[in-house]
Amino acid sequence: MSRGEHILLDHGAGGKASAELVAELFARHLGNELLGQMDDAAVLPPLGGRLAVSTDSFVVDPIFFPGGDIGSLAVHGTVNDVAMRGATPLYLTTGFVLEEGLPIGDLERVVASMGRAARQAGVKVVAGDTKVVGRGQADKLFINTTGIGVIPDGLELGAARARPGDAVLVSGTLGDHGVTILASREGLGLTAPIASDSAPLNHLAAGLIAACPGLRTLRDPTRGGLATALNEIAALSGVGIELEEAAIPIDPVVAGVCELLGLDPLYLANEGKLICIVEGSQAEAALAAMRSDPLGRRAALIGRCGGQRAGRVWSNTSVGGRRVLDMLSGEPLPRIC
Amino acid sequence: MSRGEHILLDHGAGGKASAELVAELFARHLGNELLGQMDDAAVLPPLGGRLAVSTDSFVVDPIFFPGGDIGSLAVHGTVNDVAMRGATPLYLTTGFVLEEGLPIGDLERVVASMGRAARQAGVKVVAGDTKVVGRGQADKLFINTTGIGVIPDGLELGAARARPGDAVLVSGTLGDHGVTILASREGLGLTAPIASDSAPLNHLAAGLIAACPGLRTLRDPTRGGLATALNEIAALSGVGIELEEAAIPIDPVVAGVCELLGLDPLYLANEGKLICIVEGSQAEAALAAMRSDPLGRRAALIGRCGGQRAGRVWSNTSVGGRRVLDMLSGEPLPRIC
Repeated sequence: MSRGEHILLDHGAGGKASAELVAELFARHLGNELLGQMDDAAVLPPLGGRLAVSTDSFVVDPIFFPGGDIGSLAVHGTVNDVAMRGATPLYLTTGFVLEEGLPIGDLERVVASMGRAARQAGVKVVAGDTKVVGRGQADKLFINTTGIGVIPDGLELGAARARPGDAVLVSGTLGDHGVTILASREGLGLTAPIASDSAPLNHLAAGLIAACPGLRTLRDPTRGGLATALNEIAALSGVGIELEEAAIPIDPVVAGVCELLGLDPLYLANEGKLICIVEGSQAEAALAAMRSDPLGRRAALIGRCGGQRAGRVWSNTSVGGRRVLDMLSGEPLPRIC
Repeated sequence: MSRGEHILLDHGAGGKASAELVAELFARHLGNELLGQMDDAAVLPPLGGRLAVSTDSFVVDPIFFPGGDIGSLAVHGTVNDVAMRGATPLYLTTGFVLEEGLPIGDLERVVASMGRAARQAGVKVVAGDTKVVGRGQADKLFINTTGIGVIPDGLELGAARARPGDAVLVSGTLGDHGVTILASREGLGLTAPIASDSAPLNHLAAGLIAACPGLRTLRDPTRGGLATALNEIAALSGVGIELEEAAIPIDPVVAGVCELLGLDPLYLANEGKLICIVEGSQAEAALAAMRSDPLGRRAALIGRCGGQRAGRVWSNTSVGGRRVLDMLSGEPLPRIC
């Protein structure tokens, strides 16, 4: 199997070509003692404690972009969802749907990137599956990942736990991933560099959990962005969320592209940022914990939860107005993750 | 949302339309107390014992076929992979990739079928994800499922555990699923009825485990069929496997279609059959256990493991010859599951 070859229908048939693909490509980059069992299912040692389980399919277009690719994104996205429940992510499964004709070199680049991302996040890929569909029946490749983590005893985080008086923080600039994908796809000739923020948030989350006994909610604002994630929290918790627009960190390049194209960075996807809702008295402790982590250097306190206008989210604008932030409606950017 | 509508890119954007799809369609058919958490990840209670974890993506074409559809198949396929390690399947996650324009009525039919299949198998869908890609970027819908089960203490089943002297059994007729998909796709005007064998094997497996302390290996011969699965077992266990061709149960309609089209039923996919390898002295006990289950009525003893020709599989033909059964090579039927 050479990098110059292409994926054939054979590679998904479960016979010799499938076995070669597993042995020569997947096992090489993702292999570990659990994946190597080669049985219908992997056997994992007993896990003490409650489990957090999440699944995501990734269909991002293009599959390679500044700051990452569909492989690293598929690891980060699911690791982050598991970590947002306070769990330590331990295991991933991965399912590939490949389009006939995909260059094997592209697949290998994606799988190698998954392997690096998994090692960086400290998770093992324990089971996988590959299907191949004909030309024109999928677009290059889609990846599903499912993650399993263990939640420390006594820890309860969730989108329904915010209370009036809680502080709302974000771990850094918003909209970087969304703007990067859009710029890659449209071939915008940006003079300033911009890259996806795709990154594993489990270490940042663990630092917050250790520093803040009053932590209520962690959430990574992916599809739908900050505004949609906060709407979900406001609705599930029965609080109103008031933001200070000037406090929300936005990279100037992202702000410029958004202005140019009429996009709102508060609705754009992020893949390496988290929203942290914490008891008001612990806002500074949360901020300090995030800023001590390389992925939280630009963390900011952006608002508060209150008892008024339960279920709604709004921001106080820099010119003294108030803007209601509803859930995302419509599709600003398809295939963003 | 009415059944006459179609899937739009909006439905995958993570905003209002996504939330409606979750609330009005997925939650209605798949809902339970764990799926209803609506957080980034589901939280499961502590599970005592080792876990079996498996993932599969389903791309079957057509999505509706006699005996099932892509939804029931996605539940059965993963439940069965988990059960083949001796585990009790408990939880599933599901990830959908939908093509823009898919009729919502078709999606609902598939999701309702998943719900019925999950209830029948006794598993809960605990997490889900939906992405939508543009027209022509996928073919109708693809489904990934990942399953989690718990393995009873002390039970060790696996493809590397077969030993010389062991008996080889199958739970019923082979090739039904493969021939059904082919006939559906090609519009063969079959006069005799034939249907996919898609079914959950966890109850059948549990019966075998209870009846046979000398159980070595369970395996469901899906893609690549009986011959490929036995080759994997022979290679991993270091045994030779000798079959009696006349003992292998094949439905006459399947045999007829295979003869007509030059296909070999031993290489066709099954979705409701298992291979059982058991200590030779317990072959009759295994056969009785299978035949007492509706899914194992046509179970048969089809061969033995030996120490000769380790890693190879062959059958003694009814005319006194010997046929080597290698792994599947090439792709007889793309998108079979």
